[in-house]
Amino acid sequence: MQDPLITLTTDFGAGSPYVAAMKGVILAVNPAARVVDLSHEIPPQDLRCAAFFLASALPYFPASVVHVAVIDPGVGSDRAVLYVEVDGHRLLVPDNGCWTRLASGAGRPPLVLRVSEPRFWRHPVSATFHGRDIFAPVAAHLSLGLAPAALGPAMTEWLVLQERPARVHADCLAGEVEFVDHFGNLITNIPGPAFTALSGRPVRILVGGREVSSRVRTYAQAEPGRLVALVSSSDRLEIAVAQGSAAQRLQARVGTEVVVRAEDSPVGP
Amino acid sequence: MQDPLITLTTDFGAGSPYVAAMKGVILAVNPAARVVDLSHEIPPQDLRCAAFFLASALPYFPASVVHVAVIDPGVGSDRAVLYVEVDGHRLLVPDNGCWTRLASGAGRPPLVLRVSEPRFWRHPVSATFHGRDIFAPVAAHLSLGLAPAALGPAMTEWLVLQERPARVHADCLAGEVEFVDHFGNLITNIPGPAFTALSGRPVRILVGGREVSSRVRTYAQAEPGRLVALVSSSDRLEIAVAQGSAAQRLQARVGTEVVVRAEDSPVGP
Amino acid sequence: MQDPLITLTTDFGAGSPYVAAMKGVILAVNPAARVVDLSHEIPPQDLRCAAFFLASALPYFPASVVHVAVIDPGVGSDRAVLYVEVDGHRLLVPDNGCWTRLASGAGRPPLVLRVSEPRFWRHPVSATFHGRDIFAPVAAHLSLGLAPAALGPAMTEWLVLQERPARVHADCLAGEVEFVDHFGNLITNIPGPAFTALSGRPVRILVGGREVSSRVRTYAQAEPGRLVALVSSSDRLEIAVAQGSAAQRLQARVGTEVVVRAEDSPVGP
Repeated sequence: MQDPLITLTTDFGAGSPYVAAMKGVILAVNPAARVVDLSHEIPPQDLRCAAFFLASALPYFPASVVHVAVIDPGVGSDRAVLYVEVDGHRLLVPDNGCWTRLASGAGRPPLVLRVSEPRFWRHPVSATFHGRDIFAPVAAHLSLGLAPAALGPAMTEWLVLQERPARVHADCLAGEVEFVDHFGNLITNIPGPAFTALSGRPVRILVGGREVSSRVRTYAQAEPGRLVALVSSSDRLEIAVAQGSAAQRLQARVGTEVVVRAEDSPVGP
Repeated sequence: MQDPLITLTTDFGAGSPYVAAMKGVILAVNPAARVVDLSHEIPPQDLRCAAFFLASALPYFPASVVHVAVIDPGVGSDRAVLYVEVDGHRLLVPDNGCWTRLASGAGRPPLVLRVSEPRFWRHPVSATFHGRDIFAPVAAHLSLGLAPAALGPAMTEWLVLQERPARVHADCLAGEVEFVDHFGNLITNIPGPAFTALSGRPVRILVGGREVSSRVRTYAQAEPGRLVALVSSSDRLEIAVAQGSAAQRLQARVGTEVVVRAEDSPVGP
Repeated sequence: MQDPLITLTTDFGAGSPYVAAMKGVILAVNPAARVVDLSHEIPPQDLRCAAFFLASALPYFPASVVHVAVIDPGVGSDRAVLYVEVDGHRLLVPDNGCWTRLASGAGRPPLVLRVSEPRFWRHPVSATFHGRDIFAPVAAHLSLGLAPAALGPAMTEWLVLQERPARVHADCLAGEVEFVDHFGNLITNIPGPAFTALSGRPVRILVGGREVSSRVRTYAQAEPGRLVALVSSSDRLEIAVAQGSAAQRLQARVGTEVVVRAEDSPVGP
């Protein structure tokens, strides 16, 4: 039997004593817990980025892990703290939709509990730091084997983060940049299969109105510095510059419009 | 019996091979040690920030942990390396005062030893990197159960970091910004209870001469973008912008003056 | 018997879901693995920095650890993935030379295998993220005790990173800055012993044409703000500013020329 795993994802920043305080609280409740940092560099209060991050990372973990995500602009309001079981994963999250993307591909509906039993919290509960006072001790208790039902009652409604799906037509795909990675690669919300299907035909690819004329299967197929379109490791249309930054080259950011249009379509671009 | 825990706090930066070298040395001496990163982003040589960080984070940890803090502008000088037991926590620190704030609230005086027994060091000891050659191997030996007394003799004097306490008067609180977090929230050295007591009366709050007119209990009570005063999770007066950066808005930094003055006081502002 | 250790070194950035995905894959294959972050802040695709980092950090680790380094500009090309045993350490690396510096001081030649057996990979293998689909699961299988020979055939040729050794003459040392640390210290490729030998004589030290006139043994010997030369903890000539940044002061970066010339030499500077 391995020591239990707890992952942490926050927008606290790597220099923050807040992350350290959470680790202390977890280890004080369960000294055997193994705490794994996922990231503390989610941009402050950026729920869309948090949702992308969690949906990109959590599916790879084994089922027994407790994932704690504290991107929590509503801390101190009456927003609930949730315990969620979704698609075989266990999360503690604020009720702000940061996790709901994980539910979209899941076979069965999620189990959602409202974390309301103060017995497992740290007291007094700060009005501004539930990460330390609610999320951390509850995660530690779960890692000790606490039955989730002890945390609070089941919920049937929760906040769902508004997705902005790409529009997929026969001759055209229209979406936007959803994530800019550390290399400056632009991950879009356009599904890889839709792009692959359309790009069997001659297509024009526009990112924020600027043309991307080259398509490759891997970065290595592009000459260094070349702007290219490819299918990302998360199966989306990705715009990249081999050994460079597409974000910089195209002045693109999250939300920049991306269009793929068949050139042999009767309606011109 | 859990594998022993060692935490690391440094100003080496996340890109640094120095942190990695320390982890290697620890694991070479005690392969069972669990190394927990607190932060490697303390600003270079910033003892005041280190002191704030350690006092904000360490109290939450269980007692058995060995905490290593290497913010060490005096490396290579004759400053001592200390083993400290304070308020139930165990630290390895340079003798530069970064830990002394932890002693202020403690019930009994700290135990302080001078780490001087070279038997537990890595040799040759570099003149510039005691983190790798003294702190890391000594922490690992402690995690193996070494009795602290073997490290060196007890000390009765050590460097105490000069605190800059806020001045608390009947009609006025005067202090300064002590820490700026990743969100741009300004954590001051003004005690939360003193602020709470005074702010039952009409007060004027000035940060670097600029007025903060709104008081809340939580970020969520403020409309986004609003500049507010509240009591922080560390029980201090905190100045924040809901979903924004107070540091940016007020051009404030560590050391910026903060004044809270009763408006019904006979002496005008 | 301790739980096995796997270290991660990448250029993915601390905000990246790519690191988190790798951790998930490792823990899904071997939930008992202890994953240790070395750094995720290697500058993007910077093989020279990766080589410096690995050579600076890995020698301190015990032999049983599996070190995974994913700085991989050639991902998706036909560059091989390597399992390497060198100088008592075990690595999984792309065949791009990032590890070959570790071989230079080793007693015997490295064992190098081509990781080609897809049985231990995650499928389908992405064209752009072998960290998740090849490196992570293979590391986890090794940590479970898999015999390396099962990964693929031995190789006798591999890419060696071109080193740029300093030139060491009787009256002159000529090299360059090889690494700039978080403090702005300049670590050069000039061996410490050569500098120590020459600097018994009156010498002139030039960094990018600007003079460094002071020599010390430790930072603490220099007055704050003073530009000094010393021998680094990695036994190289290092240029530093006590409690400041030499990189900023000298406008120096990786590749900046560094010359040490004996002043009593018949040929003038």
